[in-house]
Amino acid sequence: MRSALALARRNLGRVWPNPSVGCIVVKDGRVVGRGVTAPGGRPHGEPQALAQAGDAARGATVYVSLEPCNHHGKTPPCSEALIEAGIARIVVACEDPDPRVSGGGIRRLREAGIQVDVGLCAEEAQAVNHGFITRILKGRPGVTLKLATSLDARVATSTGHSQWITSPDSRARGHLLRANHDAILVGIGTALADDPELTCRLPGLEGCSPVRVVLDSHLRLPTSAKLALGAASVAPTWVVTLADADGRRAANLEALGVRILRVDRDETGRLPIAAALTALAGQGITRLLVEGGAAVATSFLKAGLVDGVEWFRAPMLIGGDGLPAVGTLEAETLEQAIRLFPVGDETRRYLTS
Amino acid sequence: MRSALALARRNLGRVWPNPSVGCIVVKDGRVVGRGVTAPGGRPHGEPQALAQAGDAARGATVYVSLEPCNHHGKTPPCSEALIEAGIARIVVACEDPDPRVSGGGIRRLREAGIQVDVGLCAEEAQAVNHGFITRILKGRPGVTLKLATSLDARVATSTGHSQWITSPDSRARGHLLRANHDAILVGIGTALADDPELTCRLPGLEGCSPVRVVLDSHLRLPTSAKLALGAASVAPTWVVTLADADGRRAANLEALGVRILRVDRDETGRLPIAAALTALAGQGITRLLVEGGAAVATSFLKAGLVDGVEWFRAPMLIGGDGLPAVGTLEAETLEQAIRLFPVGDETRRYLTS
Repeated sequence: MRSALALARRNLGRVWPNPSVGCIVVKDGRVVGRGVTAPGGRPHGEPQALAQAGDAARGATVYVSLEPCNHHGKTPPCSEALIEAGIARIVVACEDPDPRVSGGGIRRLREAGIQVDVGLCAEEAQAVNHGFITRILKGRPGVTLKLATSLDARVATSTGHSQWITSPDSRARGHLLRANHDAILVGIGTALADDPELTCRLPGLEGCSPVRVVLDSHLRLPTSAKLALGAASVAPTWVVTLADADGRRAANLEALGVRILRVDRDETGRLPIAAALTALAGQGITRLLVEGGAAVATSFLKAGLVDGVEWFRAPMLIGGDGLPAVGTLEAETLEQAIRLFPVGDETRRYLTS
Repeated sequence: MRSALALARRNLGRVWPNPSVGCIVVKDGRVVGRGVTAPGGRPHGEPQALAQAGDAARGATVYVSLEPCNHHGKTPPCSEALIEAGIARIVVACEDPDPRVSGGGIRRLREAGIQVDVGLCAEEAQAVNHGFITRILKGRPGVTLKLATSLDARVATSTGHSQWITSPDSRARGHLLRANHDAILVGIGTALADDPELTCRLPGLEGCSPVRVVLDSHLRLPTSAKLALGAASVAPTWVVTLADADGRRAANLEALGVRILRVDRDETGRLPIAAALTALAGQGITRLLVEGGAAVATSFLKAGLVDGVEWFRAPMLIGGDGLPAVGTLEAETLEQAIRLFPVGDETRRYLTS
């Protein structure tokens, strides 16, 4: 199952709106087939692994990182493919919460006389499938907040100097994070200040750049911005804006290939983060990386819409006059502070619950 | 040598102004004697280890964490004791920078025909002897800055709520830090706001409380403060103040057993940190723990007078409206930020050079 999960992890960020599912076929103690959801989401991992196994699939055991699908979509259901291949036993890491599947795949397999065991490495599988599950159950992507700060949690000096706080190693890890997320989000402040590309520039992973998303209430993103100019060629660029944002500005951006997503303002007149996430989930995004700046990070944290934090800390102190990574949270007592839970022994990754 | 260093570490904070020196006597592959500088600084580790070894010391090898002394102080020099005991070989971790010793101990031992090897575990020994060496070479104690903050480097919420940011485990570790430092320093702001005891309250180490030092330019420490009331009974309390601070206030504190150290104001009229450290070194302090608050931490950092940082981070975010652990450092570019060097794989301990 660990191998199936490793396969699944490999295509995270490239299969949305589908989950990345790893599948291993084992016969007489030997691996005879492997498969993982292909970039774009099709074909699924199971038919690929079965094709690789060929006749050896008969009587074999299959390990799969998520419950096989049981509904006719663009392809016939994986449950049928597994039954036809004559699999004897299937080990499933966790159930698919998709109401079209939700135990149905497992039931269908059992009805066909296949032994099905569920729950091996379930916790690890929940983590791998987190974005997919969150979109199904909560109607929003799984959200990872990336912070790159000094030890005293500042992102720039008082004069705005910020390049580079973190080391080349940390920045490479940051690009890897981009590659395994479906989309990367920044606020219009960061887009205007830095004119970033937000692409994955790791050797060999240049093609894995995620959708670039800008939160931009008033469509201030200029048509001359790299994010706008590269929308048709480099990687998709989406702008989330208010429903009543200027139509001509929208048309100019759309002419460059930028997709405009409109959401209603909240009672304070602002662009609500929750609605932006719903809009992104509506477009199929399952794994969202929030990269900044401080205002956006703070909005996500205050809204309770961060699932995990990836915190790159550079061994320096910028001081209290520097720009803080996290803005006003209005916590009056420590009980109101936002708790984070370190993942393992690491001090780079945290979960919010 | 690792055993000798471990012995030395055991009495750090209890032997000032002396170094804590560990000594192991090995004969025919067996340890026949151990010793470490006793609390108070006398006797040294070597004579204790030799006494334990007795006749077995003849022809033995001695491992010692710092060059044996060679000057007649309150006790005869350790070099003579080692020669008299008939030691065959001595392994010294690092030389003593004390001008009264400085290679003299090693020279004396070699003249007596003993084989002396220097430099085993030298780096570790430099760390163990750091405070002692810093006092000799720079005329100030080695300074450790302790920070206990949220992940976003805040020490309290906007309303001042700060108890407890860190876990009971972290606080116990903090008390252990107190025990192995000669003195612990806070600013008058912290002394007034928290009325702290600044003692080591770990079971079994209650007697290891360091000297409590308050930086208090204008002698605002009230005679009703726990630090003042306990000066004669709990642990020594010293107040570093300006040369022209009020004499009557000083007399009132002195009547309670508080020691007053006076330093000249600098050109800006303030109490200079460097002068305070010189005064503390003059009283024999070799290892100083700076505990707060933010103003004092910032002053020490800006003055470049911090050697190491012990950073306890609680897994929570307080937000930008919370009180920062480090104040204004006036770094305009990242090159002007204060670099810290993590010790090993840890993300709790840092050195400043």
